[in-house]
Amino acid sequence: MPRRDGRNDDDLRPVTIVPGFARNCAGSVLYSCGGTTVLVTAQVADAVPPFLEGKGVGWLTAEYAMLPGSTPTRVSRRTDGRATEIQRLIGRSLRAVVDRQALGPFTVHVDCDVVNADGGTRTAAITGAYVAVALGLRKRFGVERAGAVLKDSVAAVSVGIVEGRAVLDLDYSEDSRAEVDANVVRLGSGGLVEVQGTGEGGVFSRAQLDALLDLAGAGIDRLAAIQREAVEGG
Amino acid sequence: MPRRDGRNDDDLRPVTIVPGFARNCAGSVLYSCGGTTVLVTAQVADAVPPFLEGKGVGWLTAEYAMLPGSTPTRVSRRTDGRATEIQRLIGRSLRAVVDRQALGPFTVHVDCDVVNADGGTRTAAITGAYVAVALGLRKRFGVERAGAVLKDSVAAVSVGIVEGRAVLDLDYSEDSRAEVDANVVRLGSGGLVEVQGTGEGGVFSRAQLDALLDLAGAGIDRLAAIQREAVEGG
Amino acid sequence: MPRRDGRNDDDLRPVTIVPGFARNCAGSVLYSCGGTTVLVTAQVADAVPPFLEGKGVGWLTAEYAMLPGSTPTRVSRRTDGRATEIQRLIGRSLRAVVDRQALGPFTVHVDCDVVNADGGTRTAAITGAYVAVALGLRKRFGVERAGAVLKDSVAAVSVGIVEGRAVLDLDYSEDSRAEVDANVVRLGSGGLVEVQGTGEGGVFSRAQLDALLDLAGAGIDRLAAIQREAVEGG
Amino acid sequence: MPRRDGRNDDDLRPVTIVPGFARNCAGSVLYSCGGTTVLVTAQVADAVPPFLEGKGVGWLTAEYAMLPGSTPTRVSRRTDGRATEIQRLIGRSLRAVVDRQALGPFTVHVDCDVVNADGGTRTAAITGAYVAVALGLRKRFGVERAGAVLKDSVAAVSVGIVEGRAVLDLDYSEDSRAEVDANVVRLGSGGLVEVQGTGEGGVFSRAQLDALLDLAGAGIDRLAAIQREAVEGG
Amino acid sequence: MPRRDGRNDDDLRPVTIVPGFARNCAGSVLYSCGGTTVLVTAQVADAVPPFLEGKGVGWLTAEYAMLPGSTPTRVSRRTDGRATEIQRLIGRSLRAVVDRQALGPFTVHVDCDVVNADGGTRTAAITGAYVAVALGLRKRFGVERAGAVLKDSVAAVSVGIVEGRAVLDLDYSEDSRAEVDANVVRLGSGGLVEVQGTGEGGVFSRAQLDALLDLAGAGIDRLAAIQREAVEGG
Amino acid sequence: MPRRDGRNDDDLRPVTIVPGFARNCAGSVLYSCGGTTVLVTAQVADAVPPFLEGKGVGWLTAEYAMLPGSTPTRVSRRTDGRATEIQRLIGRSLRAVVDRQALGPFTVHVDCDVVNADGGTRTAAITGAYVAVALGLRKRFGVERAGAVLKDSVAAVSVGIVEGRAVLDLDYSEDSRAEVDANVVRLGSGGLVEVQGTGEGGVFSRAQLDALLDLAGAGIDRLAAIQREAVEGG
Repeated sequence: MPRRDGRNDDDLRPVTIVPGFARNCAGSVLYSCGGTTVLVTAQVADAVPPFLEGKGVGWLTAEYAMLPGSTPTRVSRRTDGRATEIQRLIGRSLRAVVDRQALGPFTVHVDCDVVNADGGTRTAAITGAYVAVALGLRKRFGVERAGAVLKDSVAAVSVGIVEGRAVLDLDYSEDSRAEVDANVVRLGSGGLVEVQGTGEGGVFSRAQLDALLDLAGAGIDRLAAIQREAVEGG
Repeated sequence: MPRRDGRNDDDLRPVTIVPGFARNCAGSVLYSCGGTTVLVTAQVADAVPPFLEGKGVGWLTAEYAMLPGSTPTRVSRRTDGRATEIQRLIGRSLRAVVDRQALGPFTVHVDCDVVNADGGTRTAAITGAYVAVALGLRKRFGVERAGAVLKDSVAAVSVGIVEGRAVLDLDYSEDSRAEVDANVVRLGSGGLVEVQGTGEGGVFSRAQLDALLDLAGAGIDRLAAIQREAVEGG
Repeated sequence: MPRRDGRNDDDLRPVTIVPGFARNCAGSVLYSCGGTTVLVTAQVADAVPPFLEGKGVGWLTAEYAMLPGSTPTRVSRRTDGRATEIQRLIGRSLRAVVDRQALGPFTVHVDCDVVNADGGTRTAAITGAYVAVALGLRKRFGVERAGAVLKDSVAAVSVGIVEGRAVLDLDYSEDSRAEVDANVVRLGSGGLVEVQGTGEGGVFSRAQLDALLDLAGAGIDRLAAIQREAVEGG
Repeated sequence: MPRRDGRNDDDLRPVTIVPGFARNCAGSVLYSCGGTTVLVTAQVADAVPPFLEGKGVGWLTAEYAMLPGSTPTRVSRRTDGRATEIQRLIGRSLRAVVDRQALGPFTVHVDCDVVNADGGTRTAAITGAYVAVALGLRKRFGVERAGAVLKDSVAAVSVGIVEGRAVLDLDYSEDSRAEVDANVVRLGSGGLVEVQGTGEGGVFSRAQLDALLDLAGAGIDRLAAIQREAVEGG
Repeated sequence: MPRRDGRNDDDLRPVTIVPGFARNCAGSVLYSCGGTTVLVTAQVADAVPPFLEGKGVGWLTAEYAMLPGSTPTRVSRRTDGRATEIQRLIGRSLRAVVDRQALGPFTVHVDCDVVNADGGTRTAAITGAYVAVALGLRKRFGVERAGAVLKDSVAAVSVGIVEGRAVLDLDYSEDSRAEVDANVVRLGSGGLVEVQGTGEGGVFSRAQLDALLDLAGAGIDRLAAIQREAVEGG
Repeated sequence: MPRRDGRNDDDLRPVTIVPGFARNCAGSVLYSCGGTTVLVTAQVADAVPPFLEGKGVGWLTAEYAMLPGSTPTRVSRRTDGRATEIQRLIGRSLRAVVDRQALGPFTVHVDCDVVNADGGTRTAAITGAYVAVALGLRKRFGVERAGAVLKDSVAAVSVGIVEGRAVLDLDYSEDSRAEVDANVVRLGSGGLVEVQGTGEGGVFSRAQLDALLDLAGAGIDRLAAIQREAVEGG
């Protein structure tokens, strides 16, 4: 039985990536998967945070916000606890592929602004941010040095158990009915970076977690291919 | 002698308006003029601010922000004095065409987020916001009631004196060299809503102000036609 | 037909300037025009903002606040959008007459605190601030260097259309009924620094704007003479 | 041996009280003692804080601020710990003479803004505030009801030990050299409301405290007479 | 080979629970595991957040803070991103065992203040909070109703891969060297509530995650028994 | 007639001091007097505030907070005016015994967190803080240098007039009924550091103040002995 939008349980929503969407910012993409659209920009600043001064290594930091018109009812611009949690996750995920020694004394600022929210905004932000960072580093430092800084690719996807079935890449309507919800962040080459599974009004078993991780792995393989194409073509 | 980008002194930059850019929000447009791009969303909330409670009339309020990647060097998300001043101008300009009695006890929230900044972001925000509000009111209340609420159209343009010449619709490079800079907000039907002329490192004469207002008037006539088309086609 | 307080349409309210009102601060004046009273202080600090460090030029910045007892109903001390907008206008207006090269690496801090509000507080603040700054610079640097720093004088006045008549220097009762309201900032020698015309619940024509600018010009000529006297006698 | 300004150890500085200084606010005074000048306004609001709603009794609250130009070096407008402490003292002192039952469901807002600081600003604020509150209540409720609300008068003075001598009403130069510093708040009829004695870089004995309290008592007797005159003549 | 403190890989640190540590607050415990000590208090307020008003169901919310002296170098009291993330996790974890319908229109406030930090403060906070909430509900509503509100118990533990070995309940020195770090929250009866695995400077495989979840499960079984004893004896 | 808890009017509540309560922080004590318990930590940072940079002298600063569970009804973590006032008092009181020259360019951070509040939290904080600071300085600098920095001991106690009787060391139920309330801070060797007497809904006479100061003196003598023992044994 297909899902409300016709997808099978292991289908991703269609992904599109528009590079250079913010013209002033080389490392920018408009990333969409289904009804979720996120504008991600990556900018390189010639400075590091105080705790890294004089150490010769760089940093990457992220901010995440819902734009006020991204949901049917207006969202306030105030950074709440959810946004704080998400931007920390985005930062950790991207730092997993940045060789901070190779980067040198620079800070990469990643900004993820949700233009339209239909579930999976944090995983869309991570997947899009990898492309934005790759494009931004190439523009700033050239392809070779950018390659030395980015050791691997990283992508993320949500999975969940909805009405008893494990499904990939939940949209908002699925997400709000899910019994279990997990976000998985993984390298293109396979290593897990972050697994966050949460029972939403329920609990989950080890077997269910395994099924979700299987689904996520297959989805991330496909996202990694899409990212590769976007970086090469960007 | 044409301008750096080939325009004549009285030429607008090319304008494009993408309606429905934020899918969840009927009243949304991506408004571009030249290199300046602003995402404008208009949402109708079923409530009024405390000072209007029980009075039966509505309100319109606006917020304005530069997205961090909108300029070559990252912009902080903090609302500074400039943004405060601009969002107040946007709010006043739009309220000039809203019949708050006809609107009834609702608040229209306008949000203007600058995706890419190349001069004239505040005037782009006003011109785009009129279209977003018109589309949002039509979606919410139907064409007839929306027409009763919006008494007229409103648009804005910047003008300035650059190297001694009065020019229309300054881009960033012109704006930063301008001796005088004015923003003009006008109804589609002709009445002036707001005139803000500022000497930037210089002063100006009554004759210069007159020349700028002439240029602005012609530009706004053209913008009003573009707005009309976008609302009808949106 | 005279106005409520007996003035003709082109009359200013009576102006008084008490220099040295805050004894610790050489550059201080209590400026009154009719029922509007503003305490303005100007202090010179031996430092410049970060963006000017090492450049050898100075800066002038302004803050504006309504004291809580300045209106019949108490005003909160919180800096709102209106105050932000006004203090930016005051800063720009004063910087138009300050030769920042001649000033050298100092910051002039202007503070305008409204003791009693009866319309025209922002223009009173600008007109009084010029006197406070002139006195403060003379005290700090001597008459000669102060003269090199202040290239000209600057004053401001409000004008508006009230019940169809263009009037000068609106008091609160006129201001709250005005159809159009403009604030004009001008050098003593004649050049316009800033023109801000706003339709308040209405719109205005080019002819009306011209009439208002004529009125304002005559008012500012008189204010410039009063300022000159206050600085020489201060 | 007289003090630097010629006073004897038990002399107050000259006091002047200008009632109605903020014209819009009946309960306003400009209170000066020597070089210290405080603008105090008292306004009656038709509401009580949440914790008193429905109880039929009123409240009095105070705010205290140094205006930026009140000291030779500019003071920031930020409410710091010292200001917080002082405004709580002012509030408690005034509430000691307000019959909150007789006041009924109203809040008296007292605002004390220091125009010029030369020592003793908090005691000047309290002494001036009593006059402002008395005038404000009379204007709002009439002399009779105001009399029922204000059960007594209250005034305050500073005392200290400077170079081994107990002196009354310290100016800034004395205050900054004082070994011990005390602020005494007392009813006109004699009862102590608040005694705050602090060793500044030193400690003090019971005998010294007694000498200071004697001095303060005589000073407050004189201030109470000056207050009485100001209220009757205000 | 034993760990630095003599434990085997699958040993918990010694746990002590002091009930009633804050005497005014029935639902309070001082929870220690090894060198980590957290004061947890649970208080029941007779109100619900706005989004639940009139719905008859209750809420549970949590705050988490490091006390300034809890680490060798002082910690600021400011709530940073890490604390925000942790307090959201604590709240979700406890809500997993609260029957909000049975609770009725009350809010349980859980506060976790870290007295001494030696790794695992968030999992200690969750494990201690369950005991504090159980004691607080019993005191407020009696044992029977408390039992209806708390459907199950919940506990949490950290696990990680340190120098290639999967270990249970990491102390600070292990945590700071861990290649992978996971926090597991589980019901006493076995269902997983939350799994958060993070590669710290590395990535992890599915097999490693499985080993960690096995370790955590055994640890939580022991913690659940300790909790049961503390609630019955508290 | 004894007091509610059986004490005579001049009895202190039982005092216990647990040194090293926060294991990471040498200068920490859990200080209790009756039902009031305060966790005090003292940490030495290798830096001074900006206003002391390059002067070679040190500083001591204090923060005070009520933990949320310290009172029957939850206390918010927000620093309000009362807390601000108290932490300033604690800082001044401790600085009275610190030789800042002997300390050198270090800052002692004192943090007082109220675990359980039953009256007298600010005086408990001061008395406990002396012990925490003494222990912290000894740990950091050795007994000899710590002795040179701490010139004397300091302790504090509350006194008040309750139902007409002067009593020592008020608990919450006495404090809330007191007509007069005073906090006295004194050196171990006898000099007064701070006296703060406040009429709470009443006023007080010189004779009453004298009786309170007598009571306080005797109490502080006993506290000083307890402190001495705790420091030597700590």
